[in-house]
Amino acid sequence: MPDTLSRTLAAIAPVDGTLRKKAMAHLDNLTKPRGSLGRLEETAARLYCIADGQAPGVDPARIFTCAGDHGVTAEGVSPFPQAVTRQMVANFLAGGAGVNALARTAGVGLTVVDAGCAGGEFAPHPSLVSAKVMPGTANLAEGPAMSAAQCQQAVETGIRLANAAAAEGARCLGMGEMGIGNTTPSTALFCAYLGFTPLEIAGPGAGLNPAGVRKKAEVVRKALWANDAAVSGGDALEILAALGGCEIAVLAGLVLGAAANRLPVVVDGFISTAAYVAAWKMHQDVADYAFFSHASAEHGHVMIMEALGARPLLHLDMRLGEGTGAAMAIFILRCAAAIFNDMATFEKAGVSGQAS
Amino acid sequence: MPDTLSRTLAAIAPVDGTLRKKAMAHLDNLTKPRGSLGRLEETAARLYCIADGQAPGVDPARIFTCAGDHGVTAEGVSPFPQAVTRQMVANFLAGGAGVNALARTAGVGLTVVDAGCAGGEFAPHPSLVSAKVMPGTANLAEGPAMSAAQCQQAVETGIRLANAAAAEGARCLGMGEMGIGNTTPSTALFCAYLGFTPLEIAGPGAGLNPAGVRKKAEVVRKALWANDAAVSGGDALEILAALGGCEIAVLAGLVLGAAANRLPVVVDGFISTAAYVAAWKMHQDVADYAFFSHASAEHGHVMIMEALGARPLLHLDMRLGEGTGAAMAIFILRCAAAIFNDMATFEKAGVSGQAS
Repeated sequence: MPDTLSRTLAAIAPVDGTLRKKAMAHLDNLTKPRGSLGRLEETAARLYCIADGQAPGVDPARIFTCAGDHGVTAEGVSPFPQAVTRQMVANFLAGGAGVNALARTAGVGLTVVDAGCAGGEFAPHPSLVSAKVMPGTANLAEGPAMSAAQCQQAVETGIRLANAAAAEGARCLGMGEMGIGNTTPSTALFCAYLGFTPLEIAGPGAGLNPAGVRKKAEVVRKALWANDAAVSGGDALEILAALGGCEIAVLAGLVLGAAANRLPVVVDGFISTAAYVAAWKMHQDVADYAFFSHASAEHGHVMIMEALGARPLLHLDMRLGEGTGAAMAIFILRCAAAIFNDMATFEKAGVSGQAS
Repeated sequence: MPDTLSRTLAAIAPVDGTLRKKAMAHLDNLTKPRGSLGRLEETAARLYCIADGQAPGVDPARIFTCAGDHGVTAEGVSPFPQAVTRQMVANFLAGGAGVNALARTAGVGLTVVDAGCAGGEFAPHPSLVSAKVMPGTANLAEGPAMSAAQCQQAVETGIRLANAAAAEGARCLGMGEMGIGNTTPSTALFCAYLGFTPLEIAGPGAGLNPAGVRKKAEVVRKALWANDAAVSGGDALEILAALGGCEIAVLAGLVLGAAANRLPVVVDGFISTAAYVAAWKMHQDVADYAFFSHASAEHGHVMIMEALGARPLLHLDMRLGEGTGAAMAIFILRCAAAIFNDMATFEKAGVSGQAS
């Protein structure tokens, strides 16, 4: 019997592109100059294709903020101590973090996932999913961050989260993450998957100074060498195992699961984009279901968006992660669905059309 | 006794800039890397200054979509017939227009204002304010669009709308407009107030082709010549009377009224920006209270934003007007207030701070 990952990959199909013309015809018939709602119209048309010609929508929507720790913090790649990952999980559960404030404001549900935090299990909490693959990855500058089996377990956790959310009626999933040091594995993944060099895309993360950024690029270079077998000859999952992190792998699975369930999935910032790229390397049709929430202020994100042919929705110089950008972008998707579903046509409103 | 306009101008004062440092200290103490919420933090700090050191907030918020007709449509500057202005007012009142869909989605109230639509009075409606200055302006390509007295009446209508909203507890006002042909007076105002040439900033508006855009620039040039006395020697109100429109003048008053009541005011697109510039030419301290919702897809808007030193919040290629961009941007302001008010501090959440 094929495993969850194989079955999910087999279930992913592109959207029916012929629906796009129907969506545009509908949008052109609404009471506004043609195309005047710009990217809202483009977004509405994509949501209509994802909904397979039904009324587009995103509610209820749910963000999964996945947390994990990284052995590579031993290299001094973050100005925050590793303990902050756990402390922030507690903060998410208490409702005091940025993603809590923004998800509440956007009317989006939030689930926190212990994908691989250092230390033991967290106390049970209604918003917490305990799915610890390991108590922090190994140091990827010295060898694989995790085994392929561990990585597949994490990816399948993400798939199951998406399946469960779909079964509960969710219409849109959002990605979010927390993990001290996790811009370093993300940078390594961008190098391995997209051919960037470490210096091109290494950035300050949570607050490194320029010397710290150069050091981070050096750590990424070491990681690419230490994992050369996977980088040069491995498949997408082996690369993710070697250079990724537990929360990144869970989020890659969330993307695959969203696409298999024909749900829009909103990518957050730099780290979530690395998870998206891992999923995209496993099945390129996930692109039909993905929306990029914002242009991260993290160095290199612009080049990565260009490499993916992606256009982020928001440009607010954010670089927090956690799902903060996803929460805000889900509001933009909701607006897109609202114009598609709720605006009057020229005929219905008795409004004269445009001279052609 | 001074008139409403003079009293309002006298009541406008800058925000207390010393509060900004206090706002930044608070934001730096919240559980996130310093500055990692980018423009949300900057927006939150501005809202804190506007709230004079109280908790920032925007709710309840209200958009005023002001409608008026323009004699200059006789020059063929729009692909839509003038009748569409009235038809769209009916559409606003029936809830079927773009701004209705987006204001509902954003949880923002909407008031429609007949500032100067052609034809008679509209039937009473709970969402309609009847404040018709005249049934459409005169053709500004041949002389003043309206008299200074009519213009002042319109500006004072906007001031009264802001005063009434403030008295009812509104914490944020949004600008919106409808008026077939109104990118032409707006272009003329940008030329007169900011020194642009018509060809630099004339754009397709609701859907002109390139020949139509050149013609519009020519009409603007004629208007500037026909109103040279006001353009060369008049004050801000006289220029607004000569080249503006009833809905533009009401919106200029709304900006002044918002500032006098110390309320944030969200500028919508190209035409609302022209109204803002008129208000700013009357009292430059309105800048402390204004937020620019989006970079309009209308040609020239980028240069105008640069001239004003303004950075729009959204970049979604929108060019509809009506208040559609304001509705969405009010959500961004709400997010900014939420992070300021609702996030935990490092100390409260027991999260370790950043190595400095």
